Amino acid sequence: MRKFASGRLRSLLIHSFQQKHILRPHHPSSSLSSSLPRFLSSSTPVLDFPPSSTSSMADPSASKLPVTLQNINPKILKCEYAVRGEIVSLAQRLQEELLANPGSHPFDEILYCNIGNPQSLGQHPITFFREVLALCDHPSILDKSETQGLFSADAIERAWQILDQIPGRATGAYSHSQGIKGLRDTIAAGIEARDGYPADPNDIFLTDGASPAVHMMMQLLISSEQDGILCPIPQYPLYSASIALHGGTLVPYFLDEASGWGLETSELKKQLEDARSKGINPRALVVINPGNPTGQVLAEDNQRQIVEFCKQEGLVLLADEVYQENVYVPDKEFHSFKKVSRSMGYGEKDISLVSFQSVSKGYYGECGKRGGYMEVTGISPDVREQIYKVASVNLCSNISGQILASLVMSPPKVGDESYELYCAEKDGILSSLARRAKTLEDALNNLEGVTCNRAEGAMYLFPRINLPQKAIKAAEAANTAPDAFYCRRLLNATGIVVVPGSGFGQVPGTWHFRCTILPQEDKIPAIVTRLTDFHKSFMDEFRD
Amino acid sequence: MRKFASGRLRSLLIHSFQQKHILRPHHPSSSLSSSLPRFLSSSTPVLDFPPSSTSSMADPSASKLPVTLQNINPKILKCEYAVRGEIVSLAQRLQEELLANPGSHPFDEILYCNIGNPQSLGQHPITFFREVLALCDHPSILDKSETQGLFSADAIERAWQILDQIPGRATGAYSHSQGIKGLRDTIAAGIEARDGYPADPNDIFLTDGASPAVHMMMQLLISSEQDGILCPIPQYPLYSASIALHGGTLVPYFLDEASGWGLETSELKKQLEDARSKGINPRALVVINPGNPTGQVLAEDNQRQIVEFCKQEGLVLLADEVYQENVYVPDKEFHSFKKVSRSMGYGEKDISLVSFQSVSKGYYGECGKRGGYMEVTGISPDVREQIYKVASVNLCSNISGQILASLVMSPPKVGDESYELYCAEKDGILSSLARRAKTLEDALNNLEGVTCNRAEGAMYLFPRINLPQKAIKAAEAANTAPDAFYCRRLLNATGIVVVPGSGFGQVPGTWHFRCTILPQEDKIPAIVTRLTDFHKSFMDEFRD
Repeated sequence: MRKFASGRLRSLLIHSFQQKHILRPHHPSSSLSSSLPRFLSSSTPVLDFPPSSTSSMADPSASKLPVTLQNINPKILKCEYAVRGEIVSLAQRLQEELLANPGSHPFDEILYCNIGNPQSLGQHPITFFREVLALCDHPSILDKSETQGLFSADAIERAWQILDQIPGRATGAYSHSQGIKGLRDTIAAGIEARDGYPADPNDIFLTDGASPAVHMMMQLLISSEQDGILCPIPQYPLYSASIALHGGTLVPYFLDEASGWGLETSELKKQLEDARSKGINPRALVVINPGNPTGQVLAEDNQRQIVEFCKQEGLVLLADEVYQENVYVPDKEFHSFKKVSRSMGYGEKDISLVSFQSVSKGYYGECGKRGGYMEVTGISPDVREQIYKVASVNLCSNISGQILASLVMSPPKVGDESYELYCAEKDGILSSLARRAKTLEDALNNLEGVTCNRAEGAMYLFPRINLPQKAIKAAEAANTAPDAFYCRRLLNATGIVVVPGSGFGQVPGTWHFRCTILPQEDKIPAIVTRLTDFHKSFMDEFRD
Repeated sequence: MRKFASGRLRSLLIHSFQQKHILRPHHPSSSLSSSLPRFLSSSTPVLDFPPSSTSSMADPSASKLPVTLQNINPKILKCEYAVRGEIVSLAQRLQEELLANPGSHPFDEILYCNIGNPQSLGQHPITFFREVLALCDHPSILDKSETQGLFSADAIERAWQILDQIPGRATGAYSHSQGIKGLRDTIAAGIEARDGYPADPNDIFLTDGASPAVHMMMQLLISSEQDGILCPIPQYPLYSASIALHGGTLVPYFLDEASGWGLETSELKKQLEDARSKGINPRALVVINPGNPTGQVLAEDNQRQIVEFCKQEGLVLLADEVYQENVYVPDKEFHSFKKVSRSMGYGEKDISLVSFQSVSKGYYGECGKRGGYMEVTGISPDVREQIYKVASVNLCSNISGQILASLVMSPPKVGDESYELYCAEKDGILSSLARRAKTLEDALNNLEGVTCNRAEGAMYLFPRINLPQKAIKAAEAANTAPDAFYCRRLLNATGIVVVPGSGFGQVPGTWHFRCTILPQEDKIPAIVTRLTDFHKSFMDEFRD
């Protein structure tokens, strides 16, 4: 069991909502702290999620079976993942009801704004990438004449190049545990071109999306609940889930909503010291840039402070950079932490830095391909050998995902046959995402009691809803968190699926939800109308 | 730290070789026990692997970095995975030397017989499967006229079917966390056709190969070192690695080499009771059928005893059935444990059974695609919900792997355009594998002091080598296990890569290696010659 989960220290935990595995933070010093009294003045949690998963524990029909909720790994029970949590289950049920009984709800489709899954909402894949994947899947058509008519010349050429990088051209073989060497060479070259600093293919570990890479690092760094991982609040719940599964302690640091989800090193320092004073040994700092769920893009100066902080405090910097291509505002630009740290003169011997990248995000949005990599730098060879060993237990990541990871880091170039189409597809997606972000942001800011920072990057808006006391009381009566209450009402009224802020963490007493900017552009006006109408009627019902 | 790793109980551990996380077994009562004295009479281990991974610990250049072997998760240090271990690293070095300096070794290529990776050794993929994958990767060619000339009609039709099963035809979207529902329907139908008993698509969890499914079950069942998992010895080291990573205890049961790697329930019972007497709570029984590394195919009667044993003892039966298509002898047949238990009248309420399947094995051998599934039965809905939650943290397995898993469970049928080619490819591969198994088995049995059970199934031979005392002493002097010593000599002399038996576990004092039957048939004679010549000279050097 977790160290702080019992006795006197129980009250040190943030119990409310879904962050049950999080060290209680130092009171946020932000301007939001005045809105916290209900939570912080209470010696017991205001709200606990009902233990929904234990509801069937008494099922007598299962009594002869050896595995029960009482005898499974308690770390699993503690783990939560709101992005596919209760609201999504409700949405799936509503969808089935709509199918079975059209007209049974006041909407005709479910709009999944809960998850960064662009192609599920109609985004098309980049043609060049899919051409290369298809050719690598079925190389025997490569030298057939019909193939020239179906595929672009540079896709055919690229497929040959990739096949030549695979020993025996065997796309059906396990690769090197870190991924095919030639593809890692390509990725390293892509990183070099992006950053202007060298990258070593031996530092690249190709993975089935970014999630397994995050798990691998958590598994490496967490030995017990004494090991802490500094995570932003709000955070992408993969981090809280992975820390819970590996039995560590999440040390929260709060992003400052008032300054556009700013990341202050004074806040990092305070939470770090607070954790240390409680016997926690912080091992790493997670930074998500561009931010998920918060959408901010860090300024280079701020990144330098973060690098310096990690170096001074002996923290591994875990840089979630999967949204590196998703920047929508002219005044911001993505800089990798590798580039920032190298520009400060810090090399392999100075700072431990792991950067995560994925084929699921960016303009490509190839979530189903499960491709990604981590670039592991500033880790000694003996420790790297241990990471390699863990990777080798799972043999390798899927080869199509590996190929795609190399393609996103090395897309068509000027002069290639596919270049124009590629640019049109890429720019079309990114400029549309920017417009959608702005439209939704404006619509949200027009709602009574709602404020929404701009989505400078990533795929999400994270508006704050100032819920009336009457709504909060109604939520309490329904035994649910106020933001979950709001989101459920929204779903039931409009078919729009968003995730309550409590799934990501938020300053206690504040309420938010995460909404993706991914519905196709022609659906955005209807979403705005539905959302606006719903919100008005919600406020009419609950306004104090 | 592990419960039995210190103090008086230290000697209870099998320390030798790579199975450092294994409960010391009850003495095997098999006919082999007379050959054990050197190990069992010793109060300290005969041999420990040198701590190779700690050799660079004193590296002063890394001293400023925060992550060291001393402060990472000790479970990772304990985990071993011989299939990609030291011998393979040596092989990779030799291969580089051969490339840089042809003629530098007494062979001109490295023959990787260490891993079940058929396509890396020249096996071709099944054409129909790859056609469907390519079309699903790039569906926009589906209605082009050139496509008719390049792809078979049933592959085109199947691709349409699959696309219609994917919401929005979005092959680039995250799917349901258990995998695309339509594909699970197809797989369930395939299981029904195989077994003659119903299968529920909601019981299927699609995974990136079988390994993540095994990890998921270990993660569920293991809360602490008190939780034991009964595993065959010899075993596929994924199991020992996964148990080590999750902090449980491997409870070994010995397969009886004298009876063709027989699995006796009396042995199961003895080891179970022995474990319980030591305070271990066995949670599950792993059975690998057909066997890896041992190649036996269980008789149905034997399987019934195993099912009964698990039911009586309240153990989850973890059935590794990834070699279900790999049976080479006319007197044996694969029966799934699901079919066997249902034929005994045991249903959902009686026995907890998880079956693992993979696209990496069989005649398809699509290791690089990382497709697979587990069928989870006899698990109560509330526990299943927890498995679903863990699956959802990783979002979903890769879609190409999911599609391929559906294809291997639903290949072309009589009358389909691809049927003849499919049968020819499948039969060609399987009959060739059977011939290769027999040739290698005979060759091994012809070697002085070597005995080899037949490979009834799977992809491996696991010969026993009766090493002369002089060789054992030389191994000791070289600070390595005698079988690892033999395998290293074999590699250096012939370029043939096999895995020492100590990587899989074996009755103490016996020595084996695992050799795949996968090199292409035209290479087998050369392998036999090289192996025979090497063995003779080895024996000449070390014969007592």
